[in-house]
Amino acid sequence: MDTTDPTEPTDPLVAEAVPVRHRRGGGRSGNARRGGAAIKQTPWTDVINVDRPTEPIPPEGVEAIHDGAMRILEEIGIEFLNAEAVEVLREKGCTVDGENVRMGRDFVMEMVRKAPSQFTLTPRNPDRTITIGGRHIVFGNISSPPNCSDIDRGRRSGTHEDYRNLIKLTQYFNCIHFAGGYPVEPIDIHPSVRHLDCLYDKLTLTDKAAHAYSLGTERVEDVMEMVRIAGGLSHEEFDATPRMYTNINSTSPLKHDWPMLDGAMRLAKRGQPTIVTPFTLAGAMAPVTMVGAVTQSIAEALACIVLLQCIRPGVACGIGTFTSNVDMKTGAPAFGTPDYVRATQITGQMARYYGLPLRSSNTCAANAPDNQATWESMMSMWAAITSGTNMVYHAAGWLEGGLCASYEKFVMDCEVLQQFIAYMQPYTTNDEDIALDAIREVGPGGHFFGVQHTQDRYETAFYSPFLSDWSNFENWQDRGSVQTVERANKVWKQILAEYEAPPMEDAIREELSDFVARRKQEGGAPTDF
Amino acid sequence: MDTTDPTEPTDPLVAEAVPVRHRRGGGRSGNARRGGAAIKQTPWTDVINVDRPTEPIPPEGVEAIHDGAMRILEEIGIEFLNAEAVEVLREKGCTVDGENVRMGRDFVMEMVRKAPSQFTLTPRNPDRTITIGGRHIVFGNISSPPNCSDIDRGRRSGTHEDYRNLIKLTQYFNCIHFAGGYPVEPIDIHPSVRHLDCLYDKLTLTDKAAHAYSLGTERVEDVMEMVRIAGGLSHEEFDATPRMYTNINSTSPLKHDWPMLDGAMRLAKRGQPTIVTPFTLAGAMAPVTMVGAVTQSIAEALACIVLLQCIRPGVACGIGTFTSNVDMKTGAPAFGTPDYVRATQITGQMARYYGLPLRSSNTCAANAPDNQATWESMMSMWAAITSGTNMVYHAAGWLEGGLCASYEKFVMDCEVLQQFIAYMQPYTTNDEDIALDAIREVGPGGHFFGVQHTQDRYETAFYSPFLSDWSNFENWQDRGSVQTVERANKVWKQILAEYEAPPMEDAIREELSDFVARRKQEGGAPTDF
Repeated sequence: MDTTDPTEPTDPLVAEAVPVRHRRGGGRSGNARRGGAAIKQTPWTDVINVDRPTEPIPPEGVEAIHDGAMRILEEIGIEFLNAEAVEVLREKGCTVDGENVRMGRDFVMEMVRKAPSQFTLTPRNPDRTITIGGRHIVFGNISSPPNCSDIDRGRRSGTHEDYRNLIKLTQYFNCIHFAGGYPVEPIDIHPSVRHLDCLYDKLTLTDKAAHAYSLGTERVEDVMEMVRIAGGLSHEEFDATPRMYTNINSTSPLKHDWPMLDGAMRLAKRGQPTIVTPFTLAGAMAPVTMVGAVTQSIAEALACIVLLQCIRPGVACGIGTFTSNVDMKTGAPAFGTPDYVRATQITGQMARYYGLPLRSSNTCAANAPDNQATWESMMSMWAAITSGTNMVYHAAGWLEGGLCASYEKFVMDCEVLQQFIAYMQPYTTNDEDIALDAIREVGPGGHFFGVQHTQDRYETAFYSPFLSDWSNFENWQDRGSVQTVERANKVWKQILAEYEAPPMEDAIREELSDFVARRKQEGGAPTDF
Repeated sequence: MDTTDPTEPTDPLVAEAVPVRHRRGGGRSGNARRGGAAIKQTPWTDVINVDRPTEPIPPEGVEAIHDGAMRILEEIGIEFLNAEAVEVLREKGCTVDGENVRMGRDFVMEMVRKAPSQFTLTPRNPDRTITIGGRHIVFGNISSPPNCSDIDRGRRSGTHEDYRNLIKLTQYFNCIHFAGGYPVEPIDIHPSVRHLDCLYDKLTLTDKAAHAYSLGTERVEDVMEMVRIAGGLSHEEFDATPRMYTNINSTSPLKHDWPMLDGAMRLAKRGQPTIVTPFTLAGAMAPVTMVGAVTQSIAEALACIVLLQCIRPGVACGIGTFTSNVDMKTGAPAFGTPDYVRATQITGQMARYYGLPLRSSNTCAANAPDNQATWESMMSMWAAITSGTNMVYHAAGWLEGGLCASYEKFVMDCEVLQQFIAYMQPYTTNDEDIALDAIREVGPGGHFFGVQHTQDRYETAFYSPFLSDWSNFENWQDRGSVQTVERANKVWKQILAEYEAPPMEDAIREELSDFVARRKQEGGAPTDF
């Protein structure tokens, strides 16, 4: 187990780069300070998407996709590579042929309707409770890339230290609402015990809602137990309401694999939510038509949601979309494309049709945190906003179609996330807003800097970025012509230097440590599935 | 007059950077080739914004802003620093006090209703006719910056050569629908004759709808005459329908200056359109509340549109929005901010309320073509899309709040404009789109690369970018880890090397040359206004 003081920057680069004040005491009482001065950021807030979603297809189109998805489930069937899942569905009257399961639309709709349209996730710090569904929108960190990069050290495989650094950024930014999958795979920890170290870090270095990978029985059970311990909960309290979640992917086309189903069913039995996200690249694992890819994706997602509702009626579920296109010249996946935006919006229409929360992602295909990365991410973020997405996965840090977590892009994405949070503040049009008296007072040719109407409001009137440089060219040049990515580089170093872990009772921390130590002694989880 | 063959790259950097094939013949018959191979771009197309606009305020809010704007016009008044304009309005019954003009809401609405909600601009090449209004959206080049930059030579004052280069890019890209103001001010041409050289270049190097600056009587009259000559039109034919346009800015708050009014009135008399764009930075020249800034902006725009409808009832007009916020710590203007997006969307609601076309811009505050530039531009572009903007000014090339035209950003913006054009292609949901047969054919666990449904569609199924690099990290690294801005640098050089001017009859070109020569001999335009 990692015994480093989580409040102490251990990355040599970080320790070197940042002038540290009075390190005598070390740890929390030393250089770290809650709400440090690295940046002035947006407060933690419940974000309500006030905009009407963009709907690319008419109601008849929604019915056509629904009908297509139902015919897939009725006529073609989905393969469930999990005997327990097949047995559950057989008992409910589905038509089973080996691993292939077909189900009628009346049954599908009856089961889907049992899932709530909105639910909460309550982590160990109840102040960090988030709502998934309705008009709520929440953002999570990048999840699961094997590599990470920063502009000093370039791209490399992820390590435990990188994992911890990115988890600290996840905790630091108020615009990140949940701690998704591992922000980078720490390949220097053996897979049999990786989940134990990673969850220990995640549950001690953050107090935000956590995710469990559905990659084998032991892992899922360990994570549920650790989340329960971290929350100081009895088993009954844990089971009573969603405390964590998993995200599973189908193996498109039309297949759900054993470990994903096993994990989702285990969570469902304990009342914990599953997001089902088919990975339907149009032209590869799904039809080349985006509408066909969405149709297939809906069938795959609903098939698993039906299963989970059979296991525990009313358990929280969400539809995830990962429908994008490939580059048809090379077969390479593309993200943040116009086609991706439309697929996300159409999936949003379908999610609302079924009354289920929607998950999408802040994706891009770029290999560097450059302009392409930013325009692809902006397309993905606007896809999330305009589709009515409730849960934005990979909202900060993602590069290379998910193969790399960039420290600088994490920071740049958080700047943009803050902008979307500001964008969601509703506008009023009362007399004070219309400001006729101020306009009269200033009159033609005057200016508004000095008037009382301005003085009363200027400090909070507009969104204030932490990363944008709004100075004029000459001032910007005088300060060294520092480009955005270099500014982001400075910011993450300062955040890591100032990082302070959220409080946790000693007894709980000890119980968590003991659990990790015991499970490591037992050998952790099998790695041969 | 510049006598360079417009088809020959004259910029030494360009000539040097690009391997030129067989330059023996020189000019058009030599290295230049129509539709050259620099990039594979989206064809010229009429873009219809299929999305329902985002409306941040309810109908009561629209009424409140309208009422505020009407009260400004009725109670406070607008200063018209132009005696002819004041006289026109006095004759129509407005209340005149020196340069201050007040007008009643019934009169305002009666006049505004005379303006068409949609009109066309027909340039010398009628195939380049564009529609302004309704659900149409068109894009124009950056206009009026004093500086330009590229990553080889850095930032500097604009020259005639830069002007011509950026005009060539304006012509080259099919996603640029109109040639707005000068893409950079060529400071090496004396202001008295600058408009003559610039318009000659614009009318010979492009065949897209052109703009006239309202900066003095002679300039406006010269440009109208040159557009008439370039189109091979009689005076009657020119006057019969919009052939060009001007854009004027109010001097906010509440003031219209002489040259802008003079130019707009001259165009109106000849049936040519004016876009009225108040420059209302909230907290500086307008109230600190965005809603107040929009209210003031609407009053300023409508006041001038009323004037133009008095001059020529039914003449085409548009509302421009340039409402953004300042950085309240420094007073620096900010662009592409969340507040800017909302102000644009609200102005869109108002434009539809008045039945007038809307102009907005692709703005940013960044000092380099970096990530900040891209996220601010993406916010501005999504503001244009979601507001129902009809005419996007500065759609390609803008940096530094409009003080600099970047060659690389021009190319990057065009990549993004193409994406928005692709985004606007409507989706159908027929059987071929749903693709149930292909899904059945492939079945669980297969792939769609080989099936006929894919083969029949893969070449055109998805948007194909010219600038995004979708290869994997290893291939990208093997090819030199070229970042987006460097790829954009290569693209503009290749475009300029391959550039070919659109055809023009020799007689017309000669008539244009003669006009320019004569007007230069007469001394051009006065420069002391």
